[in-house]
Amino acid sequence: MRELELSKAFTLIEPGPVVMVSTAYKGKANLMTISWTMVMDFTPRLALVTGPWNYSYTALTKTKECVLAIPTIDLLDKVIGVGTTSGKDIDKFAEFGLTAVRASEVSAPLIEECYANIECRVVDYIKEHGIFVLDAVKAWIDEDKLTQGIFHARGDGTFAADGKVFDRRKQMESKLPEGV
Amino acid sequence: MRELELSKAFTLIEPGPVVMVSTAYKGKANLMTISWTMVMDFTPRLALVTGPWNYSYTALTKTKECVLAIPTIDLLDKVIGVGTTSGKDIDKFAEFGLTAVRASEVSAPLIEECYANIECRVVDYIKEHGIFVLDAVKAWIDEDKLTQGIFHARGDGTFAADGKVFDRRKQMESKLPEGV
Repeated sequence: MRELELSKAFTLIEPGPVVMVSTAYKGKANLMTISWTMVMDFTPRLALVTGPWNYSYTALTKTKECVLAIPTIDLLDKVIGVGTTSGKDIDKFAEFGLTAVRASEVSAPLIEECYANIECRVVDYIKEHGIFVLDAVKAWIDEDKLTQGIFHARGDGTFAADGKVFDRRKQMESKLPEGV
Repeated sequence: MRELELSKAFTLIEPGPVVMVSTAYKGKANLMTISWTMVMDFTPRLALVTGPWNYSYTALTKTKECVLAIPTIDLLDKVIGVGTTSGKDIDKFAEFGLTAVRASEVSAPLIEECYANIECRVVDYIKEHGIFVLDAVKAWIDEDKLTQGIFHARGDGTFAADGKVFDRRKQMESKLPEGV
């Protein structure tokens, strides 16, 4: 991975990719999958939504640090695995064959298999709305991993990348609201 | 357009498309283009970031209503036109050949040319962070317009849809921070 200018880090989130959020708390690294993220400024300042129902919430609030890792479509099934299991029960890095790499500015690890990683600090938590406000403090990219595209959740258990649709409704069943 | 079940409206924003935001204030409809949006809940509750530097800000804060319209890639140049001009100077519907259609629950108009429109009410504005919190109250879809895909901003003046990249750096110049 090479360092990406911090001024360009927002370009990793602006397209609306599915991301994995890495955290580390009490010596244990964990991952979650989300697509509820937003660019807030070019600075770059970013937002994500989560809450106490998510095991990563404690790590985020206690350490005020995380890494947003951007996967390409070849990692789809690992990313869904990460998103449909809990760090309370398993070590997600081991379970899904993902490699934790030491970050530069935060204790949460980078994910080697992802094409980009953004080290972030939590600068605010808007409790009423469950919004974590993040400042990116370091960004990493490996363009060689971009032979396949990033992917987008369509919210119904299907995903889009490179003009194709990938159906994972069955695997996502536990995470979808009724009737979607 | 047919009505889309409100419970599915979040699936329109979850992929991270570029959206046009329609407002109406003092009898004048206006549009802006943004890609800084986020799903906050399945309810559906949505967020967007803007501020007083944007002409639509006044309409959003005064009327507490807007429509999020999702364009397909064939509308790219109109959407960029909407995003690089100000409603202070022009009537964007007329200028870019877009058709305002009366909405059902809000005074802001739907955009006929877009494949989907979400009528929203502003339920909160987090001033410190420029975040508008929106509740969708009615959603509309026209799947016949989906022969071409929705598109994603890449933050540097290029856009992605259907596995292709569209370079509009020159047209976007005024809106890009230096060095991106």
